[in-house]
Amino acid sequence: MKAAQWYGNHDVRVVDVPEPPAPPAGWVKVKVAFCGICGTDLHEYINGPQYVSATTPHPLGKGKIAPLTLGHEAAGTIVEVGPGVTNVKVGDRVSIDCCLTCDECDMCKAGQYQVCEKIGFYGLHIDGAFAEYVNFRADRMNKIPDSMSFEEATVVEPAAVSFHAVRQSKMQAGDTVIVMGCGPIGCSAILGAKAAGASVVYAVEKNPGRIELAKKCGATGVINPDKCDVLEEVKRLTGSGFDVCFETIGTPWAPAIAIETVHNRGTICMIANYMEDAPVNFIRISNTEKTIVGSLCYNNDFERVISMVKNGQMDISPLISKKIYIDDIVTKGFDELVANPGPYLKILVTPDKSLL
Amino acid sequence: MKAAQWYGNHDVRVVDVPEPPAPPAGWVKVKVAFCGICGTDLHEYINGPQYVSATTPHPLGKGKIAPLTLGHEAAGTIVEVGPGVTNVKVGDRVSIDCCLTCDECDMCKAGQYQVCEKIGFYGLHIDGAFAEYVNFRADRMNKIPDSMSFEEATVVEPAAVSFHAVRQSKMQAGDTVIVMGCGPIGCSAILGAKAAGASVVYAVEKNPGRIELAKKCGATGVINPDKCDVLEEVKRLTGSGFDVCFETIGTPWAPAIAIETVHNRGTICMIANYMEDAPVNFIRISNTEKTIVGSLCYNNDFERVISMVKNGQMDISPLISKKIYIDDIVTKGFDELVANPGPYLKILVTPDKSLL
Repeated sequence: MKAAQWYGNHDVRVVDVPEPPAPPAGWVKVKVAFCGICGTDLHEYINGPQYVSATTPHPLGKGKIAPLTLGHEAAGTIVEVGPGVTNVKVGDRVSIDCCLTCDECDMCKAGQYQVCEKIGFYGLHIDGAFAEYVNFRADRMNKIPDSMSFEEATVVEPAAVSFHAVRQSKMQAGDTVIVMGCGPIGCSAILGAKAAGASVVYAVEKNPGRIELAKKCGATGVINPDKCDVLEEVKRLTGSGFDVCFETIGTPWAPAIAIETVHNRGTICMIANYMEDAPVNFIRISNTEKTIVGSLCYNNDFERVISMVKNGQMDISPLISKKIYIDDIVTKGFDELVANPGPYLKILVTPDKSLL
Repeated sequence: MKAAQWYGNHDVRVVDVPEPPAPPAGWVKVKVAFCGICGTDLHEYINGPQYVSATTPHPLGKGKIAPLTLGHEAAGTIVEVGPGVTNVKVGDRVSIDCCLTCDECDMCKAGQYQVCEKIGFYGLHIDGAFAEYVNFRADRMNKIPDSMSFEEATVVEPAAVSFHAVRQSKMQAGDTVIVMGCGPIGCSAILGAKAAGASVVYAVEKNPGRIELAKKCGATGVINPDKCDVLEEVKRLTGSGFDVCFETIGTPWAPAIAIETVHNRGTICMIANYMEDAPVNFIRISNTEKTIVGSLCYNNDFERVISMVKNGQMDISPLISKKIYIDDIVTKGFDELVANPGPYLKILVTPDKSLL
């Protein structure tokens, strides 16, 4: 079967690999409809390896190292179930939670599997879903309703990341929100905050294409750092600051700015993939009683997002930017996202030409 | 009357000043029994001005600039009440909440007066309590029971600071706790965490005198950074980390260490007076879903601490280190704390020789 594998920095190849074997007990085999390109995948392509198992296997990676099939934002159809699987059956259409967990640590035992002490991911630490077929744990399958397209089911994953962040932030209906950065996670955070009843959701973004996407996702307004001082504008808009900030930029200057966008006792939820130390004077936390809280992936949030989409409480279709065939993943996917990120939130990759 | 006033860096003078006038409506006059020396006072003496109104009045400081009477950890007796005061009467023994607030901002209106947008303090922005008499707002008076000494009533203030932090952290009974730094606030945090039902409370401290004081306050054990690697020891003691960390050190390296002392989804409560930027990689927050929360002063916590002391749930007497006469505040107070901080938590200053 076809699979897009990470061989190294700037070296992702679409190759022919064997189809996965029959799924073992508790596992299922999924025929992939679409898999979205994540910022993490792009990062592994441009700057990697960061997370991907390049030379050393992940503790939960069953010895797997590169070449390794990328892809962890997937939807498809169950084509085979392993022994003992009762929660899903052959023919079920599913959206896939890609956390790879130990089930033994304190966090797993407390149900907080997203911060498993050994947390890994399909598509980074074992083979992922830029392929025709992939084997997954059955308990991370999320059935989708007939009314939901595979395209929507694929972007349930990034939507779940931000939806989890909205819940982590303890944002309440009526709160005022600011979202820093309008990539896929930032735009998903706008959708999530709106669905959770935020009274206003301002976004911070300078890329013209993404400013338009933020508005399409429902942003009340966009603060463009190229055109004004962000904190002056926050002051003008709110007086003392927003209730909640979602920080998705991840540069070293972002945390200190994020802290200042909320009023005393406000909350900053950090969702970005920070690569470097950021300088922060913590007197701006201690003397203001602000809260910083982290958010990683999702914790049973797929079913929440699926339900909200089904009920019409949340429209995640603005996250779908285009669909490409797996053979074009490098040229029309990774390289395009590097050259011209503005117009895109999610590029969906399919191994099935009939879905284009 | 005698008053110890800040004139400048390394220049605190005990001078003769007029007694405050009759208290205005809503205010009371207090005859001071004791006022404790705070780290903030010491800091203004050594490195100041930081907070003290040296040349520019504070927005709530009624035009006051140096020379200015220091002191904001006070207990005494009400000797005169202004018009309309009904919550206290002449003769009441009180412990004093020294927040100076605007009562008009969103935080004040929400009852979160400790993070008033203009927050100021008696003894830094208007005349404080290193004096024989001082005028205060009546609504910040906290009556003490007959069973409580003035000495105890004085250290209710630092105890309330840490008690507020314990509440800010949302620490629960049975939690495991680590306290970084065993000065007055750190030792108070040990007392507060124990009173709140912490199952173990480890402390991080290198000063031999303060290690003993931490044990006296009930620390389960003390991790000495001069004798071991703090994070290795945390791992040895807990496996994956403590539930809650109270960070009271305030140096630039402290926040990054504090973050690592708690397990995934744990909480770090920042109480220190941070003077400089601290480098932190926020991926250690986002990918671990840890929470950082600030804590400043107190919010109606005096009555809680007074009640817990009265009920025997909390013994704050270990915070009382010695008592000195106001004339000796520089030599036996500030200079001694600089030269030899180890043996001391709180040095109480009195203008009344009969109380020594």
